[in-house]
Amino acid sequence: MSSSSSIDQPNVITCKAMVAWEAGKDLVMEEVEVSPPQPLEIRVKVICTSLCRTDITAWESQAIFPRIFGHEASGIVESVGEGVTEFVKGDHVLTVFTGECKTCKHCESKKSNMCQVLGLERRGVMHSDQGTRFSVKGKPVYHYCAVSSFSEYTVVHSGCAVKVSPQAPLDKICLLSCGVAAGLGAAWNVADISKGSIVVIFGLGTVGLAVAQGAKLRGASQIIGVDINPEKYEKAKCFGVTDFLNPNEYNEPIQQVIKRISGGGTDYSFECIGNTGMVTTALQSCCDGWGLTVTLGVPKTNPEIASHYSAFLSGKTLKGSLFGGWKPKSDLPSLVNKYINRDIQVDEFITHNLPFEDINKAFTLMREGKCLRCVIHMPN
Amino acid sequence: MSSSSSIDQPNVITCKAMVAWEAGKDLVMEEVEVSPPQPLEIRVKVICTSLCRTDITAWESQAIFPRIFGHEASGIVESVGEGVTEFVKGDHVLTVFTGECKTCKHCESKKSNMCQVLGLERRGVMHSDQGTRFSVKGKPVYHYCAVSSFSEYTVVHSGCAVKVSPQAPLDKICLLSCGVAAGLGAAWNVADISKGSIVVIFGLGTVGLAVAQGAKLRGASQIIGVDINPEKYEKAKCFGVTDFLNPNEYNEPIQQVIKRISGGGTDYSFECIGNTGMVTTALQSCCDGWGLTVTLGVPKTNPEIASHYSAFLSGKTLKGSLFGGWKPKSDLPSLVNKYINRDIQVDEFITHNLPFEDINKAFTLMREGKCLRCVIHMPN
Repeated sequence: MSSSSSIDQPNVITCKAMVAWEAGKDLVMEEVEVSPPQPLEIRVKVICTSLCRTDITAWESQAIFPRIFGHEASGIVESVGEGVTEFVKGDHVLTVFTGECKTCKHCESKKSNMCQVLGLERRGVMHSDQGTRFSVKGKPVYHYCAVSSFSEYTVVHSGCAVKVSPQAPLDKICLLSCGVAAGLGAAWNVADISKGSIVVIFGLGTVGLAVAQGAKLRGASQIIGVDINPEKYEKAKCFGVTDFLNPNEYNEPIQQVIKRISGGGTDYSFECIGNTGMVTTALQSCCDGWGLTVTLGVPKTNPEIASHYSAFLSGKTLKGSLFGGWKPKSDLPSLVNKYINRDIQVDEFITHNLPFEDINKAFTLMREGKCLRCVIHMPN
Repeated sequence: MSSSSSIDQPNVITCKAMVAWEAGKDLVMEEVEVSPPQPLEIRVKVICTSLCRTDITAWESQAIFPRIFGHEASGIVESVGEGVTEFVKGDHVLTVFTGECKTCKHCESKKSNMCQVLGLERRGVMHSDQGTRFSVKGKPVYHYCAVSSFSEYTVVHSGCAVKVSPQAPLDKICLLSCGVAAGLGAAWNVADISKGSIVVIFGLGTVGLAVAQGAKLRGASQIIGVDINPEKYEKAKCFGVTDFLNPNEYNEPIQQVIKRISGGGTDYSFECIGNTGMVTTALQSCCDGWGLTVTLGVPKTNPEIASHYSAFLSGKTLKGSLFGGWKPKSDLPSLVNKYINRDIQVDEFITHNLPFEDINKAFTLMREGKCLRCVIHMPN
């Protein structure tokens, strides 16, 4: 990294980034120019970034290239733009794909984390000027999910970063910036799982297992995990899964098996695969009267959720969960403190640690279902 | 009516009933034999029965004939079967299409009204022996929705009737045995509408207008009613509808209009038509973050509810409402008392009063959208 910045006026940084030039093609290590943060933005030295399934889904299917993916990350503030009062150089931060402006109707409501100003950003540009802060040889490179952490330095809106305790190890808590927090929040904030209840989770990746952990900590009496990969079971036990079901081992629809072993249907079901057909199965797996299905996944294909109306008429509820209902700035610092106090498990989700240059290996591991979280360590 | 019963041992009653012999064909006045109530059953002299849309949907489409329809009714207990301790001859009752056994897991839970013993019965027979209590010239005639009130006398399970105050006029409170209660409960129990909120209701029939009344009594600040029949508007105002929208008068999707006039989407939306496509529209009409869609209708065609996953990921919830979440025995008596105390409006839903022999006129009025509730008065 070379920087020509003075102390007061940050300048362009040239550093390494893993750039996606085409959908589904290996990322390429490039020298990128990272602009100084504009008003209300901060520039962050990324310390660790972990690969999340959504990065892969977008990389495989979206049309905006060249692009720097990565959104689950931790880092240290390198410089701040005009008007930023919340951060100073040296602050430890988590980046977040959905921001919190603290002033819109949704940020002011206790019922929503759907910030109307800095919510889910899909077009690959910065909020303030719809421009990019990255370029390679003068050519703009697009952002991803308001974060773009597959770069040694990145620029994010100050509303899309959260200051956290400097005691927390950045190579672990990066997982709390997306997947693990999303699962815990779905269990706690969105479903509000009650003690003694029965839960079924479809898909035992990081998000699904974080739901399991959340359910266990709430005192669920039975946690059924559904996955077609039998290798997931051992790990799933650590997070509280009591019963493992592989749909391929049954000659009947898996919802029938679930209804049988749960005595008529579960209290809660969670779809953590990103398969809209499985949302229907999840609805059919929970009980009449109060059964709640929470859908967390972003589908790779078929975006339509469909269900026979009788599922609803018999008293079921279908609810979505984005980032587990957490308001990032308001809630993540205390979640990080829970990790410091060992109230929640995070380390156990990390199956691989890889240097930045090996990021394509992480893509392969995740596509082959051979990892939970691969933590990518940036060069010092 | 002729009865050969002694005081202690009820016997077969022969009386008039309007029998449906074929799907969609006019009901025919017949002499029917009504068996004595079997154990845990009661025989009820029907006083008034009002026509509900579900009667028509079933009469148009279902395969079980001959059948006696009708489920929204009031009456007086004529005799009780063995083991019935809750009712005596002369008690005033409302019949209910979904029972309450008071002992199953759902009846014991505060969260459900989906009695697992006496819940929605679709096969046209009695719970205890899967037989019928009606016959015409020796040929069995099937029941409907555990009630069959289009008969001077009917037999129902004692769990499908509710004793109510004898002060309440039976020609009015029959509406509380289904439609009006369903709408009020959807607003109060299922959605739990909060003060100052914005509500949209699709379909301004009795159920939809009862939702409006429920919303108004909760202090909703804006109640948008959507219906393609402009004649509904005047009546809708009485029940609290503040804005009337006729989708045929707009060149853009009605959900866009609703989002505009509600400042980004309503807090609650209710589908009261029985159109699964409209459930999707209802979801699109409510706001991100906390928007709740409640589906109450039983669709006449296309039973599949479909929605893009993003509706849920942005924080919306879809919930079903059967009988407004009321537990009939536990909750209806106090709803009747609310009517007696003039806390709720019921009379205003009654647009027509007809003698029993004119019941086919009520069918025509409802199919043509020219009534809210037609109350059918049985002969004295």
